[in-house]
Amino acid sequence: MASGEDDLIARYFKPLATDPGTFGLTDDAAVLTSSGEDIVVTVDAVVEGVHFLADDPPDTLARKALRVNLSDLAAKGAEPAGFVLTLALRDVQESWLAPFAKALGEDAAHFKCPLLGGDTVSTRGPLSISITAFGRVPKGRMVRRAGAKPGDLVMVTGTIGDATLGLDILGGGELAKAMANDATGMAALIDRYRVPQPRNALALAVREHATAAMDVSDGLAGDLTKLCGVSGVSADIRLADVPLSAQARELVARGIVGIERLVSGGDDYELLCAVPPNAAARFVAAAKATGTAATVIGEFRAGGEPPRFLDASGKPLALKRLSYSHF
Amino acid sequence: MASGEDDLIARYFKPLATDPGTFGLTDDAAVLTSSGEDIVVTVDAVVEGVHFLADDPPDTLARKALRVNLSDLAAKGAEPAGFVLTLALRDVQESWLAPFAKALGEDAAHFKCPLLGGDTVSTRGPLSISITAFGRVPKGRMVRRAGAKPGDLVMVTGTIGDATLGLDILGGGELAKAMANDATGMAALIDRYRVPQPRNALALAVREHATAAMDVSDGLAGDLTKLCGVSGVSADIRLADVPLSAQARELVARGIVGIERLVSGGDDYELLCAVPPNAAARFVAAAKATGTAATVIGEFRAGGEPPRFLDASGKPLALKRLSYSHF
Repeated sequence: MASGEDDLIARYFKPLATDPGTFGLTDDAAVLTSSGEDIVVTVDAVVEGVHFLADDPPDTLARKALRVNLSDLAAKGAEPAGFVLTLALRDVQESWLAPFAKALGEDAAHFKCPLLGGDTVSTRGPLSISITAFGRVPKGRMVRRAGAKPGDLVMVTGTIGDATLGLDILGGGELAKAMANDATGMAALIDRYRVPQPRNALALAVREHATAAMDVSDGLAGDLTKLCGVSGVSADIRLADVPLSAQARELVARGIVGIERLVSGGDDYELLCAVPPNAAARFVAAAKATGTAATVIGEFRAGGEPPRFLDASGKPLALKRLSYSHF
Repeated sequence: MASGEDDLIARYFKPLATDPGTFGLTDDAAVLTSSGEDIVVTVDAVVEGVHFLADDPPDTLARKALRVNLSDLAAKGAEPAGFVLTLALRDVQESWLAPFAKALGEDAAHFKCPLLGGDTVSTRGPLSISITAFGRVPKGRMVRRAGAKPGDLVMVTGTIGDATLGLDILGGGELAKAMANDATGMAALIDRYRVPQPRNALALAVREHATAAMDVSDGLAGDLTKLCGVSGVSADIRLADVPLSAQARELVARGIVGIERLVSGGDDYELLCAVPPNAAARFVAAAKATGTAATVIGEFRAGGEPPRFLDASGKPLALKRLSYSHF
């Protein structure tokens, strides 16, 4: 008696619904328990042709759709608690759904963020995936964008700008030619675009040490501008201190890529934190313990103007485009 | 410095974010507080051309997108706590967004279900709206689909089948001709399709009196079959007792519409409950106090076979199609 939609859910998604609060996806709703902690809620959707390419592999796509939400939870200092999925599909293809669901299940298990429920609908349009993810923090302890103080250090995890370079390569841009002799380097950049590495292992350190935080999803420059705006502060960034991968560093050194492009490119899914100077060493150590670098790239300062990005001579860079906007 | 997307959020959706846990939509995430209750999570998406028509008014569309989720919360016995919204738009039109956001805000206020956050993305495809809604129930008290016992009464609220008739009229089907002299009746049926009346006022009564419940969204026959399956019971329904509106009753009496179509049509957003006989009078009274009828339409019985829909002579109706499926 099961309809096609029920079959699809039973076959591909029921195995992921390991949490008792899902009742094996046989109900209209799931239960998320709380022992009085706050539930942190975040939602991010990805659309074919906008956030991912039509020929992106289904497994990396599943990981990216979940990880962009996990990255938000990490930035808020929250432990993952679960997620719900809305999948708008043109048709049901085993060859697409099987690897998609398998990878989603692997990531859900790895990040301890179980599937709690979802809705699968048909569409004539582009494939889209919307995920609402939940995390837990002790009451009142979600780390906000607001809270950065003058004198706090501006810190980022990992390296900045790789994903936008990976996207350029996938699109057959000029970088594919410039890096023609470095297949490994190109693959590393593509991987950074397709499979973000959310910093959930650092959630507790963010909660303990950061006065404000967000993840870098739309470009460091634009995201820092938003954080400054909500915190009511400004910032000075030393561009020379922005951490770059070996690939990005070489492309900058060869004059093929400008730093502006790296700090406005987006899709980094690194953490951007305001950390008081006396906590910086502990934050760096906590990051190092998880295999991630945390780097001081500047300072917050009093003032209402947008942050400045200073070159080696201390001159502010004029950024034409801070970040991606849909409209 | 705000991008188009930020402008859109600030202009249309920030006024709806009245809950302190939203931080005025200036953060990556929202906080849903809990004093140890369970959080009930449900997600439903609607897609242009599938769940609604391209020329459906934006205000009714907003109400429907939220109300289909509110209906799930009602069926689970949960008090609304808030929702997040993913909106995939082809473009930003003031004439569409302003009434959409206004109606969404009115419903959010009316049902005490505030906007907590969301994601607005661009798409080349059909407009789609995905809502994840949250409710609260005392720990362990979510009313499930599983739980119906042999001997429990099958009860539904309101009337069944109106929305599918309204959809037929909107599509210029044969009903528009058959009802040409009854503009008021046609408008009432269209309204039932476009603006569901979720039974959230009955959530406490569902929790107190129902052993199992779900909302009727895909058609009474198919939804009852699902509830029976998960509960491990069967049911006998007396078709003559299925509550119909005056319009539906007249169309059946004139032989224009068969009862089969009404019980498999979908979009009712009424409650389907299993209620022990000794609690039925109290459930009916509770419903009446909220201005809604609750009607006994049959009994659950032991057995694993699908429910039977019996005509006036006690003969089971052969249903060709139980409910809507996307795939």
